[in-house]
Amino acid sequence: MRRGTSRDIRTANRYEVLRQIIAESPTSRQELAAATGLSLATVATLVGELLDLGMLTEVGFEDSAGGRPRGLVAVDAAGGALIGVDIAETYVRVELFDLALNVLARADEDMRPGESGPQQVVGHVAAAVGSVVAQAGVEDARVLGVGVSVPGQVDRDTGVAEYAPNWDWHDVPLLDLLAEHIAYPLHLDNPLRACAVAELWFGAARGRGDAVVVNLGTGVGAGLALGGGLHRGVSNSAGEWGHTTLVLDGRPCHCGNHGCVETYVGAPGIMLNLRELSPGSTLLHPEDQTATIDALAAGVAAGDPVAVEVVRDTARYLGAGISDLVNLLNPEVVVLSSWVAAALGEPLLRAVREAVARHALRRPLAATEIVLSPIPTDPVCLGAATFALEGALQSAGRRPTGRTAAARSRTAPPV
Amino acid sequence: MRRGTSRDIRTANRYEVLRQIIAESPTSRQELAAATGLSLATVATLVGELLDLGMLTEVGFEDSAGGRPRGLVAVDAAGGALIGVDIAETYVRVELFDLALNVLARADEDMRPGESGPQQVVGHVAAAVGSVVAQAGVEDARVLGVGVSVPGQVDRDTGVAEYAPNWDWHDVPLLDLLAEHIAYPLHLDNPLRACAVAELWFGAARGRGDAVVVNLGTGVGAGLALGGGLHRGVSNSAGEWGHTTLVLDGRPCHCGNHGCVETYVGAPGIMLNLRELSPGSTLLHPEDQTATIDALAAGVAAGDPVAVEVVRDTARYLGAGISDLVNLLNPEVVVLSSWVAAALGEPLLRAVREAVARHALRRPLAATEIVLSPIPTDPVCLGAATFALEGALQSAGRRPTGRTAAARSRTAPPV
Repeated sequence: MRRGTSRDIRTANRYEVLRQIIAESPTSRQELAAATGLSLATVATLVGELLDLGMLTEVGFEDSAGGRPRGLVAVDAAGGALIGVDIAETYVRVELFDLALNVLARADEDMRPGESGPQQVVGHVAAAVGSVVAQAGVEDARVLGVGVSVPGQVDRDTGVAEYAPNWDWHDVPLLDLLAEHIAYPLHLDNPLRACAVAELWFGAARGRGDAVVVNLGTGVGAGLALGGGLHRGVSNSAGEWGHTTLVLDGRPCHCGNHGCVETYVGAPGIMLNLRELSPGSTLLHPEDQTATIDALAAGVAAGDPVAVEVVRDTARYLGAGISDLVNLLNPEVVVLSSWVAAALGEPLLRAVREAVARHALRRPLAATEIVLSPIPTDPVCLGAATFALEGALQSAGRRPTGRTAAARSRTAPPV
Repeated sequence: MRRGTSRDIRTANRYEVLRQIIAESPTSRQELAAATGLSLATVATLVGELLDLGMLTEVGFEDSAGGRPRGLVAVDAAGGALIGVDIAETYVRVELFDLALNVLARADEDMRPGESGPQQVVGHVAAAVGSVVAQAGVEDARVLGVGVSVPGQVDRDTGVAEYAPNWDWHDVPLLDLLAEHIAYPLHLDNPLRACAVAELWFGAARGRGDAVVVNLGTGVGAGLALGGGLHRGVSNSAGEWGHTTLVLDGRPCHCGNHGCVETYVGAPGIMLNLRELSPGSTLLHPEDQTATIDALAAGVAAGDPVAVEVVRDTARYLGAGISDLVNLLNPEVVVLSSWVAAALGEPLLRAVREAVARHALRRPLAATEIVLSPIPTDPVCLGAATFALEGALQSAGRRPTGRTAAARSRTAPPV
């Protein structure tokens, strides 16, 4: 059990109530109390705050078997807009959501190799944010915030991208750069925590005690949702499972270490698995991770023995690495997320389950389910938007915008 | 942030207040509120409960700079006794503590190889528990509980030792067997969680956000103290870091896997490191782990190059494994605990710090301190006794003994 301050607890309870209302609208305060385990009085207070914020709306009454009719509330989808930004190695994707987390608009910007300087990336993000706001026709005042996911290690409090290995970024003040173009409250974090928070609010980790969200993309990480909240660690860098050792003195990793999980199961690692197995394979698109992973997926579907073998190899590494998470953390669910997991899908899942069953200890294995992410859209955009939603909920009862955002709004015009 | 039920939160706050009083007695309710961040009203309620339980005593007043004199409270050391049982591979150690967690009596029983059947172990434990109660001259009614640590995987709720690899125990109903001889409330868990809770209450993890307690003995594990509480996982088996992969396809492990951390840094693994480096070394006592580790410690102190090299080798493995914990969990402190860490001491610590600095990512590395456990007595006994203390605190405000213990007290005579 974690002890938090009373304000932490109030914020966490506010998350829990809104999460439940988003999942089941309309609903009554009584149902919310039953579903969350909170007292009716606490639920009534929290619902009152969410109504005041314009996030909920009263939608009538239901009979209660002879008692007084119960008031029903639902998310006011039009009560605000949230923007999620997924800055990936090869593209920037921006989605604008309503408060029920439906996607209202999307903008994609490709980034070619060599276009990954901070100012270039900021330009892409600003253009795409402007585009989704214009497409959706949302008033500036209704945009509650923008969550931004950038790979690597991130200081949330200062908005600095401390280290993005694939671009060799060091200490880039990304939020300050973005604030010159974007006037909405900004929230920075990284894809592994974005995927984890998306699963926690809307996916396979919702309502589960302890969950690990394994993020399989170019980079690899494990978002830790422990006890119903994100485990961030003492300096917001928890989850760097991609940089844990799987093979001591194994493949060199860009982090400076050897044998990291990421070097075997990240997209470039999978390409290396393919190259080692079948050097001249036509499945390999040397400069294109996405094309290679898609070719492997198609190959597996068609029964191509090389593709099948590469997925089996990759699953063997993944199985060993996921068993480490199962043995160490004893989670209720392990979720495979991000684009590599989505592309390789069920065949990868089956092979991973078999490999974990060979590696993990009996007791934690019996308690763990391994699933593919059920989130149908880009989980990083959804998670980034959720950071903006959490930011808006944290400031409930205080001034409508947070310190940083308020300071930035005074100096920067809206996009 | 973890959300708990209001009862979880009340129990956690009760722990926090008592922990603070044990650390600083006498103290006032006002100082406790300042130290814990709880409101004065909450502290006053919790102190009242602890006074009612006879765990605290009022010890006078202090001036408060012109205000009303403040009442002072202290732990009532004689308010109860707690017993901690450390069932290890080669011995059973039992300690009896007062409520300030001072050791009042100790009993050790050696177990020879072949004496590790459940009934033999239970006999040793019962004899030693009887011995410490007699030595300390404590009335039965003052013994608040007995915490029992047994290696391996443990079901706390049912009191079953599910799997103790070194003895090949499977599903041994240890608490039921013990209850035939011991009439006090019994609490079962394993050494890695006992060491973690000892550090959390009385050691290097006290007051730290996130801590990892690395347990180096015959077996190896990592107790996870996250957000001020023990992370147990969904089926109380979290912390099996000894069975995470360090060398894929490496040394065979008794868990059935290969290349587990434990096979390189557990006492038998260290003996293997020595044997591989210097097959005929006189440092090696083939059938005696303790003697070998002690010989290595003495060898390092005397500058024996083989001993120095074995500790360096072991630290290299340990450093890679601890870096995994640092990168994954981003803890504030990593504590090296248990008898191997105590025996190899500062030279091991220095070598581990160097190895972690080579392996870990910059951001989490900068946030982490690595220390030896400051607990001067057997941390497993202390932690086991702490489980008994937590059990007594959980039942505060309810019937004085828990369900299981109450049921057992009716059928079994006191020792």
